[in-house]
Amino acid sequence: MQRTLIKDLKQHLGESVTIKGWVSVRRDQGKLVFFDIRDRSGTIQTVVPPKSGAFESAKDIRVEYVLSIEGIVNTRPEKNVNAKVENGDIELAIDSITVLAKAEPLPFDMSVDGFNLDLPTELDHRALTLRHPRFQAIFKVQAVIIDSFREFMKKEGFFEFQAPAIAPATAEGGAEVFQVEYFDKKAYLTQSPQLYKQIVMTAFERVFSVNKVFRAEPSTTTRHLTEIVSLDAEMGFIDSWTDVRDMSEATVRFILQRVSEQCAKELEFLGTTVPVMLEKTPTYSLTEVFQKLGVPEDKDLNPEQERRLCELVKEETGSDFVYVYGYPTRQKPFYVYPNPEQPEFNEGMDLLCRGVEWLSGGRRINDYEQLMEHVQLWNMDPQKIAMFLEAFRYGVPPEGGFAFGAERMTMQILGLKNIREATMFPRDMNRIDYPLSENRTDA
Amino acid sequence: MQRTLIKDLKQHLGESVTIKGWVSVRRDQGKLVFFDIRDRSGTIQTVVPPKSGAFESAKDIRVEYVLSIEGIVNTRPEKNVNAKVENGDIELAIDSITVLAKAEPLPFDMSVDGFNLDLPTELDHRALTLRHPRFQAIFKVQAVIIDSFREFMKKEGFFEFQAPAIAPATAEGGAEVFQVEYFDKKAYLTQSPQLYKQIVMTAFERVFSVNKVFRAEPSTTTRHLTEIVSLDAEMGFIDSWTDVRDMSEATVRFILQRVSEQCAKELEFLGTTVPVMLEKTPTYSLTEVFQKLGVPEDKDLNPEQERRLCELVKEETGSDFVYVYGYPTRQKPFYVYPNPEQPEFNEGMDLLCRGVEWLSGGRRINDYEQLMEHVQLWNMDPQKIAMFLEAFRYGVPPEGGFAFGAERMTMQILGLKNIREATMFPRDMNRIDYPLSENRTDA
Repeated sequence: MQRTLIKDLKQHLGESVTIKGWVSVRRDQGKLVFFDIRDRSGTIQTVVPPKSGAFESAKDIRVEYVLSIEGIVNTRPEKNVNAKVENGDIELAIDSITVLAKAEPLPFDMSVDGFNLDLPTELDHRALTLRHPRFQAIFKVQAVIIDSFREFMKKEGFFEFQAPAIAPATAEGGAEVFQVEYFDKKAYLTQSPQLYKQIVMTAFERVFSVNKVFRAEPSTTTRHLTEIVSLDAEMGFIDSWTDVRDMSEATVRFILQRVSEQCAKELEFLGTTVPVMLEKTPTYSLTEVFQKLGVPEDKDLNPEQERRLCELVKEETGSDFVYVYGYPTRQKPFYVYPNPEQPEFNEGMDLLCRGVEWLSGGRRINDYEQLMEHVQLWNMDPQKIAMFLEAFRYGVPPEGGFAFGAERMTMQILGLKNIREATMFPRDMNRIDYPLSENRTDA
Repeated sequence: MQRTLIKDLKQHLGESVTIKGWVSVRRDQGKLVFFDIRDRSGTIQTVVPPKSGAFESAKDIRVEYVLSIEGIVNTRPEKNVNAKVENGDIELAIDSITVLAKAEPLPFDMSVDGFNLDLPTELDHRALTLRHPRFQAIFKVQAVIIDSFREFMKKEGFFEFQAPAIAPATAEGGAEVFQVEYFDKKAYLTQSPQLYKQIVMTAFERVFSVNKVFRAEPSTTTRHLTEIVSLDAEMGFIDSWTDVRDMSEATVRFILQRVSEQCAKELEFLGTTVPVMLEKTPTYSLTEVFQKLGVPEDKDLNPEQERRLCELVKEETGSDFVYVYGYPTRQKPFYVYPNPEQPEFNEGMDLLCRGVEWLSGGRRINDYEQLMEHVQLWNMDPQKIAMFLEAFRYGVPPEGGFAFGAERMTMQILGLKNIREATMFPRDMNRIDYPLSENRTDA
């Protein structure tokens, strides 16, 4: 018999169907055995009636067995209806069971409420913990974040390109970059697709990429990984850096809306709601922020100041988001556009939410001569960015762009405490799949 | 005045508009100066009338200048209509021009017909050649291939995940793998997301990824790169390897259809058509293929045999595609499923098109004990694939999957001679942006 997906069972009330899936829960109640079965589409309670031919075979079936089940879809008696769970008003009365695969006894409690591992153990057993509804929910939200970024970009006329991961040189400083043995040469993993997306923008005008970037940060904070998914956009023909702010705001707004719509069940399960974005997000220059906080002006905000700013803005306006622009020009990369009126401040910007930076961007220098001046001032080797510089010799409109990390946005939307929870296979200085101190690698 | 995109100009006949874009062509005809202007949406011929205030400023404007132009959208006089080009029935009469950015004189002819560079020069100048319609067309097709892969996967209930690029060990042999200096340890760039996609499949049932993979192949053929975009799928609850074949066939069919629909203009410009896929693609076992070719049975097809097979199938059936399955089990990786009737042959498969392999896949072993037997037989270190093996301890349905490279498919659909033409920033053993022999790197 053709397989029926669990989400479609309600269309087959009273009919005999075949479902296939994993055993999430086994419950023995006197003469009745119940299995909660899950497939990619949902979960259903099934019951083995005492006189069923399946009763004997049901005896040995444990959690995570993979089954093909034939049975009848029934409405539950009124007293057994559970409005709080999916398919709580129906159940499947089993006629026969085929075991498609056995499972060993689990090494820990994987039930919805009983699951309670420390983070290292959770990550060591990623192959199994991914089956828990908590992680199914987290990575569903992440998939929607990434997919809705692409959806919005395409809607706005942005062209998708594939940024490279291997780079020939460390253009922007080499401290936090991974080195690759490239045949008999050295190469590097890209820390950002920045220069490539600017090149491609000069040909396609509006471009985006979803791309891995790599940071050799020797830190073990709750916010940093060595490999992340970067969502990048770059656009030509802007009139001002505020066009970039507006596009980035519209992008985040669209993502939050899609997550709310498509992940309502997951947000509820995780006990959270998406942050509040006002029609116009409060926007302050760095100088204004220091005045607001009543502290002396500095080169950048420290984490504590970021938290206080977000709290203040939330109290004053109700917004969970705040833009900060106008950082000291020399604090930022060579390509960031200096404010023509006050060249010591640039037209870069950050979007903060709930105390943490979500997104960075701003206007870039598009004039070739100005760019070459900055290359000199920043003491850079023009040979190492020759391809980037060539793009700007041949006519580039005023432009800007922005970027954000998919894992950090997942973490922040869901209020997770550690970015490793928002990453399927997190890499940091101590872990690649397993702790690097354990002898599971070639190293 | 608000900018109008060039594709929308026909809706503004007789009106004054502002367009912004690059000068593709400058033509001087006596007292008239013409500019072909392009933006992200299209191309339009503009003309500077002799009495226009813009006539003086037009004098210095060269190819690739970036302009903001105000003018009136006119229908062309009958005799000037050119049905062969985009917007060939209208033109823009220029009132005023603002130069947004200047361009240096080009280092080579970038006109549609005059462009004629050898491949190394074309790649050295990627920052500029990307502006040529040939490459705009190629990378448009590539973006559609990748996007329609994702579209079809989502339609079929596949879940998108992000496969890692950094791996802890070289599970499947280390010869062609890049090594990364990972703090004080060694790590590696993934050659394939194979084991990770199988892990994620055990939790999400149907999964896909669009992901960079890396091969340290010391070859300089027209088909090989060191960094490619891999399109990967894996599905549980199959009944037979032919379910995988059917899903891969439907995926390729959908991609070809989307490319035909969304890239008609690009295919015409590049002078090509998509390959012919029949309702049911001819499918032969490797043994049958050798009989068909009239050559002695061997372990695999060589490139010449692949070409001959495709020619034969094309002659006999009209199909540009052919599936080959049933390779010798010990020739393939440990996870490939052996045919239960003839365990010396496996249920892996390749899809060939126009003489070249496009896609590989097949059924995998899902039974933990059988998997462990293969791990022993293949002489593998179970510690190095511990996370993968753990997934299979806890119940995995019969499953399979497939993978193909975005660049090779782009190359093959468009009949390009070299995969580097189908890659925006190709990396090989001699080139990362520029030839590695030149001193532009840190190496």
